[in-house]
Amino acid sequence: MTKTQSAYFKQVPQIAYEGAASTNSYAFKYYNPEEKVGGKTMEEQLRFSVAYWHTLTQDAADPFGAGTAERPWDHLSGMDLAKARVEAAFEFIEKVQAPFFCFHDIDIAPEGSSLRETNQNLDTIVSMIKEYMKTSNTKLLWNTANMFTHPRFVSGAATSSNADVYAHAAAKVKKGLEVGKELGAENYVFWGGREGYETLLNTDMKLEFDNLAKFYHMAIDYAKEINFDPQFLIEPKPKEPTTHQYDFDVATSTSFLYQYGLQDHFKFNIEANHATLAGHTFEHELRTARTSGMLGSVDANQGDTLLGWDTDEFPTDLYSTTLAMYEILKNDGLGRGGLNFDAKIRRGSFKPEDLFHAHIAGMDSFAIGLKVANKMIEDNFFEDIVAERYKTFDSGIGAKIKEGTTSFAELEKHALSMDSIDHASGELERIKARINQYLLRVNEL
Amino acid sequence: MTKTQSAYFKQVPQIAYEGAASTNSYAFKYYNPEEKVGGKTMEEQLRFSVAYWHTLTQDAADPFGAGTAERPWDHLSGMDLAKARVEAAFEFIEKVQAPFFCFHDIDIAPEGSSLRETNQNLDTIVSMIKEYMKTSNTKLLWNTANMFTHPRFVSGAATSSNADVYAHAAAKVKKGLEVGKELGAENYVFWGGREGYETLLNTDMKLEFDNLAKFYHMAIDYAKEINFDPQFLIEPKPKEPTTHQYDFDVATSTSFLYQYGLQDHFKFNIEANHATLAGHTFEHELRTARTSGMLGSVDANQGDTLLGWDTDEFPTDLYSTTLAMYEILKNDGLGRGGLNFDAKIRRGSFKPEDLFHAHIAGMDSFAIGLKVANKMIEDNFFEDIVAERYKTFDSGIGAKIKEGTTSFAELEKHALSMDSIDHASGELERIKARINQYLLRVNEL
Amino acid sequence: MTKTQSAYFKQVPQIAYEGAASTNSYAFKYYNPEEKVGGKTMEEQLRFSVAYWHTLTQDAADPFGAGTAERPWDHLSGMDLAKARVEAAFEFIEKVQAPFFCFHDIDIAPEGSSLRETNQNLDTIVSMIKEYMKTSNTKLLWNTANMFTHPRFVSGAATSSNADVYAHAAAKVKKGLEVGKELGAENYVFWGGREGYETLLNTDMKLEFDNLAKFYHMAIDYAKEINFDPQFLIEPKPKEPTTHQYDFDVATSTSFLYQYGLQDHFKFNIEANHATLAGHTFEHELRTARTSGMLGSVDANQGDTLLGWDTDEFPTDLYSTTLAMYEILKNDGLGRGGLNFDAKIRRGSFKPEDLFHAHIAGMDSFAIGLKVANKMIEDNFFEDIVAERYKTFDSGIGAKIKEGTTSFAELEKHALSMDSIDHASGELERIKARINQYLLRVNEL
Amino acid sequence: MTKTQSAYFKQVPQIAYEGAASTNSYAFKYYNPEEKVGGKTMEEQLRFSVAYWHTLTQDAADPFGAGTAERPWDHLSGMDLAKARVEAAFEFIEKVQAPFFCFHDIDIAPEGSSLRETNQNLDTIVSMIKEYMKTSNTKLLWNTANMFTHPRFVSGAATSSNADVYAHAAAKVKKGLEVGKELGAENYVFWGGREGYETLLNTDMKLEFDNLAKFYHMAIDYAKEINFDPQFLIEPKPKEPTTHQYDFDVATSTSFLYQYGLQDHFKFNIEANHATLAGHTFEHELRTARTSGMLGSVDANQGDTLLGWDTDEFPTDLYSTTLAMYEILKNDGLGRGGLNFDAKIRRGSFKPEDLFHAHIAGMDSFAIGLKVANKMIEDNFFEDIVAERYKTFDSGIGAKIKEGTTSFAELEKHALSMDSIDHASGELERIKARINQYLLRVNEL
Ligand SMILES: [Co+2]
Ligand SMILES: [Co+2]
Ligand SMILES: [Co+2]
Ligand SMILES: [Co+2]
Ligand SMILES: [Co+2]
Ligand SMILES: [Co+2]
Ligand SMILES: [Co+2]
Ligand SMILES: [Co+2]
Repeated sequence: MTKTQSAYFKQVPQIAYEGAASTNSYAFKYYNPEEKVGGKTMEEQLRFSVAYWHTLTQDAADPFGAGTAERPWDHLSGMDLAKARVEAAFEFIEKVQAPFFCFHDIDIAPEGSSLRETNQNLDTIVSMIKEYMKTSNTKLLWNTANMFTHPRFVSGAATSSNADVYAHAAAKVKKGLEVGKELGAENYVFWGGREGYETLLNTDMKLEFDNLAKFYHMAIDYAKEINFDPQFLIEPKPKEPTTHQYDFDVATSTSFLYQYGLQDHFKFNIEANHATLAGHTFEHELRTARTSGMLGSVDANQGDTLLGWDTDEFPTDLYSTTLAMYEILKNDGLGRGGLNFDAKIRRGSFKPEDLFHAHIAGMDSFAIGLKVANKMIEDNFFEDIVAERYKTFDSGIGAKIKEGTTSFAELEKHALSMDSIDHASGELERIKARINQYLLRVNEL
Repeated sequence: MTKTQSAYFKQVPQIAYEGAASTNSYAFKYYNPEEKVGGKTMEEQLRFSVAYWHTLTQDAADPFGAGTAERPWDHLSGMDLAKARVEAAFEFIEKVQAPFFCFHDIDIAPEGSSLRETNQNLDTIVSMIKEYMKTSNTKLLWNTANMFTHPRFVSGAATSSNADVYAHAAAKVKKGLEVGKELGAENYVFWGGREGYETLLNTDMKLEFDNLAKFYHMAIDYAKEINFDPQFLIEPKPKEPTTHQYDFDVATSTSFLYQYGLQDHFKFNIEANHATLAGHTFEHELRTARTSGMLGSVDANQGDTLLGWDTDEFPTDLYSTTLAMYEILKNDGLGRGGLNFDAKIRRGSFKPEDLFHAHIAGMDSFAIGLKVANKMIEDNFFEDIVAERYKTFDSGIGAKIKEGTTSFAELEKHALSMDSIDHASGELERIKARINQYLLRVNEL
Repeated sequence: MTKTQSAYFKQVPQIAYEGAASTNSYAFKYYNPEEKVGGKTMEEQLRFSVAYWHTLTQDAADPFGAGTAERPWDHLSGMDLAKARVEAAFEFIEKVQAPFFCFHDIDIAPEGSSLRETNQNLDTIVSMIKEYMKTSNTKLLWNTANMFTHPRFVSGAATSSNADVYAHAAAKVKKGLEVGKELGAENYVFWGGREGYETLLNTDMKLEFDNLAKFYHMAIDYAKEINFDPQFLIEPKPKEPTTHQYDFDVATSTSFLYQYGLQDHFKFNIEANHATLAGHTFEHELRTARTSGMLGSVDANQGDTLLGWDTDEFPTDLYSTTLAMYEILKNDGLGRGGLNFDAKIRRGSFKPEDLFHAHIAGMDSFAIGLKVANKMIEDNFFEDIVAERYKTFDSGIGAKIKEGTTSFAELEKHALSMDSIDHASGELERIKARINQYLLRVNEL
Repeated sequence: MTKTQSAYFKQVPQIAYEGAASTNSYAFKYYNPEEKVGGKTMEEQLRFSVAYWHTLTQDAADPFGAGTAERPWDHLSGMDLAKARVEAAFEFIEKVQAPFFCFHDIDIAPEGSSLRETNQNLDTIVSMIKEYMKTSNTKLLWNTANMFTHPRFVSGAATSSNADVYAHAAAKVKKGLEVGKELGAENYVFWGGREGYETLLNTDMKLEFDNLAKFYHMAIDYAKEINFDPQFLIEPKPKEPTTHQYDFDVATSTSFLYQYGLQDHFKFNIEANHATLAGHTFEHELRTARTSGMLGSVDANQGDTLLGWDTDEFPTDLYSTTLAMYEILKNDGLGRGGLNFDAKIRRGSFKPEDLFHAHIAGMDSFAIGLKVANKMIEDNFFEDIVAERYKTFDSGIGAKIKEGTTSFAELEKHALSMDSIDHASGELERIKARINQYLLRVNEL
């Protein structure tokens, strides 16, 4: 229905699956929504989501230059612009066959001259979105409040040095929870881009931690109060825009949650590029969260490890998508989470068509990753490697260690009794060559 | 007494305080052990420690070259070498007036052909050290077990993929606790240089975490069993030698400790260069530990942030020593911990004399840091900045936030009532200029 | 005169020297323009310059947030805003006693709807500035053309993939040279923030190099044609905003200049934070340029080596200012160049007063660096270290090497004749302790 | 013949090509030496070389641990060990079908107690190698002198602060050239791991540059003198082991060569991991050298961009091998150079079998890269993208720019005449998706 109403992307046809040999730029070569992989359809496994801010709102500016993006709605402004974007959003999302989308409050509606007016703008657009959702298959993966763009957040939001800003932030999250409930959001996300410090020289870190924890508790309480039960997600990122952000990585945020008794209320929204900025691989962050039972959702993108900032590139590295999908499949999927393309076209890819090419590239790359990872799991590829490598823990002293039924005295006795220790090679080079083989045979799957 | 027995460093006189104008290379310009700063003597405040491995054992090799160090004991080997080093150690430590020293087991005694022989070697040297300690003021700050050099630890120690290695590691820590008790160590340190993974592709991270936690619990139990009560310390480091080390930084290790119920049994030994390798400042790690009540001890060195590995330089950056001493003074000191020079002379500083110059440089730099930080605290310099910056939390809605007596509904009401928000500047540039003034007036303190 | 006309910074008095003990925020503690250091006044030695863009034009925005700066001219726009900024600029520059300023074309005048209109705007403001300069001591250190902000430069300017953009860039530099002549600029700067590539996958690097070289040759020709003889300067920077910028560092640009026969026409404008982004120290870049006879001017700032982008902080690190001033003094000064504060107040330092505090911090820091470096040179501090360390090149086989009068055969004969080689220690730790002593005695100079 | 003599790797069969579906660990899946790709056999195109040091000499030690490698010659020492390694080398190289090998002097023969004895050791082993080469197809790609391991090189070799060391280095290179001539080496390599500085604080950079240039001139002269005409190669690397190495990257070394009139005598040996340590991609360094006509040879490995040191991993990243092979094919091959596996098995891959797995992984990865890159070139894939993107330089003002027949005045006229500028998208996302398609269809090539 929306398709007949809106025609911002007239030049682009409905994107459909055509197979690996297709040379049609506007077709999927691997993502086939109905195809079953690992017992579920690709659509169910991948739960793709379009990020409203990158695809509808941003203009491809960078710190040294004005926006380059050419968009069919560039002539509009204010609420007219916001409404046009909603129309274009549903056209776009349906054309690329993403079942979900995500947004920050100010992505969808402009800030007004007062909080009251901002909320009214939001209400207008939320109603419009709700209307569109009635006749569309598009669902809301998550929403969040932007608490980093406006100058008032110069020193943070829930960790601001200013109590008035804290109150303003609370009001925004309160509204965000109401909006999430209204639109049936599966999750609610906190990304603390200004929650942290620029310099310790003027910062009361302890007070800021305490205030942040109270903020989270109040958010949980308020959601309960309005009978809204989203999965709360924290999205870690180490050091941009703020010199040190408190949610540096999964482990850092886990430490915070435990210290404040919040660990049962949150899971993580893990972004690939944020992982690398923290000095980790994407799969490290996924594994860390999975190990703690806190893998909630994913911001699917990739970074440039030779650059020191968040480039939010569309994911095309098949090694990365494969290892990510392995973690997700081993997690039994993402539950209420999904794969949200928190990814932006390059500044040099400024045409509307590039938005389609970029999503197709990302969706195909994760579809390939899914197929390869699933095949590896079917073959017990990694599982066999691990079972062999750790087999000394299956019996004897190893089993006692695993069960927790030994002591330093007994272990010393065992150690003194050994003449030498046999080691098996880790065989990393052979494993990597095998992974290449798996990857290059995806067309046979 | 030892001074009359040993004369490895004949050419170097006893190091004494001569004041800021001294041009004597073999004198302190700032470190004056008996001088009181902040109510205690410098010796009490700084609790300096010599690292046995860097000063007595290592030879200034690097991954591309053989050792360059010229040492008076180079002609010796085996237990003769180990004994000579003990003699030299006490001569050195007393000459530089460090009240403490630290060691790994294999720093002081060579590994034998069996664990039993290794332990015998250790016993011999420990007896010798104990004898020396009777007539020396030198005390043992901490000891630890080296579980990273020997090839058996190729895949870790307490997180090895091999149960036999785990048992061997347990035996070493058991012995380490016995040695610590024997020599009256104040602390026992775990640095997990091989506890982590080279690649997730062959790693069972969850099992490794579980095993590590059990290892720590057994260590605690064993210490109790032998009536030894050291402060247990974890020394975080992110990624060298192992691609990913589990004790990445203070926050990561805190997360682990909480998840396994170990948080009350450990504090942290924080190394400056490990902080920067993890993407943090030294003072960030100190503050993070202090905030969690877990600041235990310090490995005093500095790194080169333009290089990607641990350079373990002697600390001479006065900004860093000042901010570190600020954190330590605000922590009410390090308790049973100290400032251990986990620092090595540069490969190009290969003469025995350089060991003295390096320690003098480091001790003076921390003495300056102590004096400057103490003056700032006396002046309430940072405290006034923070009090002013966060003053909105002292009354009204801010006080309610701080007390935890408000809600999103009340905060929204407050937010809707505000016309605009007043902000105070963070004034970082002015603060930095003031710090320079404090530093440059240290000679007047 | 301008001071009586403009009063944008009423609350801030004229900044004057008050000495090291002053606690007046609006006073220099070290920068004393008339004081002689090393045979010249500080004003002559330091040649400070205010960067128009950071101080007058920018608003403290960052990639994740709107500008926070509060400026007395915020209510104005268009040419009115541009004119107000000129008034404020002269008030500011005179109040902080900087003898120079620098600008990009669009810092001083807004772009019009056509190149023609842009040039007219520029003419208007240039006339106004020229008028102000008549009654002010303020001089123009350099000007340049901004060829990175406008979307047309998305793929570069003189290395654009589009010939029309190249022509537009040429027109801007042509105008820039005319403006430089009109205002008596000492230098003309090229900073190629978009000269480079985002990806090699669509880039003809060879053509872009060829075109860039032709562009420079035409610039030189045109300056000659209009009888304008500025020192041409290239400002290297490695990778921001463009993934790879052709002027990565001094050595890279030198390679380019030599390959295209341009080496006699250019010197370098070296920025501290650009040096660190390229993996070098500030002093490395200064030394590299000095060694090649190409040290032209300096963008005086500092970065945060734990962050991966250009933070352009005001310089307060006294180690850095001291070593920089050492290089500059050994270069016999900067000639027609100067110390330009390409530095911006932090986003959290948004008050007009912070602009003054920041410049005072930077000017004092370089004044301290000048005094300390000059004292070291008077003492032959580094020169003696080097003379001693390289003394084997003063006679015998060493002298022959230096003179170029030996051969591999003779050197082999020498090598075969030696039993062993004596080495002197590099003594880095002792040197660093001595530098701290020099620094901490600056108040006695 | 050697195969019948030596049996160090009995358990490993001759490695042969079996095709993409093979599951035999000891078979090539892609590298088929006789198969023609792009008009030459794979053997001719790829010119693989085994690095003696990593495969025969090193023991998998790292800065924190002793070697883990288990080698069949571990029980030997001195010249017996050296001879066993030669036997094993020829067995290994022939089994993995590499046509070339490379070595440093001390890889093949131990240093003696004097230079004379070292040279005698070398002569013995060189004779032995020459004998083996008579009946083997194995050729010497290049040799070099190790001037970084011995303590005498603590301050460099050709840039040492000590003239005696300089002479010693000259003697080593003289011998190296003689050895190269004797064994028919195609190239002679300089890797200056200690040519640089640890600190500027005690360094005479200008003298060191001058000395280095003289050293190179003498090397060229001596080669001529003995009628040996290898391609001289410089291998850049930025900062390990020395804080700053003079051959930071291709551009830096090019600058040096031009400044000393050496540019016609050298090409570059480019190592992937050195490129990334310098902040570049592998293909950037290859392109930079190619553009300057100086692409000579390649050290084929890969790094870990999340680590800050040279990991020298065997290359398995197919994106990297594809883009590298594209540059090499566009360079019309490597001429006398080759693809040398300057790559070491991981410390955890300590079995002899891992050496085979690792080389197979690397050779297959480059064979895949070759096939994919060749197909792209046959399709004019990148060439068409570039031709379209830069088409404005084919006529009109663009053609004049390219030919160098225009001026700023004419360009300004053109710029003033334009109403607006049309831009084409860079389409990076679409290009990357296409590259994935090329890669995943390699099994069809
Ligand atoms: Co994200
Ligand atoms: Co991001
Ligand atoms: Co340490
Ligand atoms: Co360290
Ligand atoms: Co600059
Ligand atoms: Co900058
Ligand atoms: Co190499
Ligand atoms: Co390497």
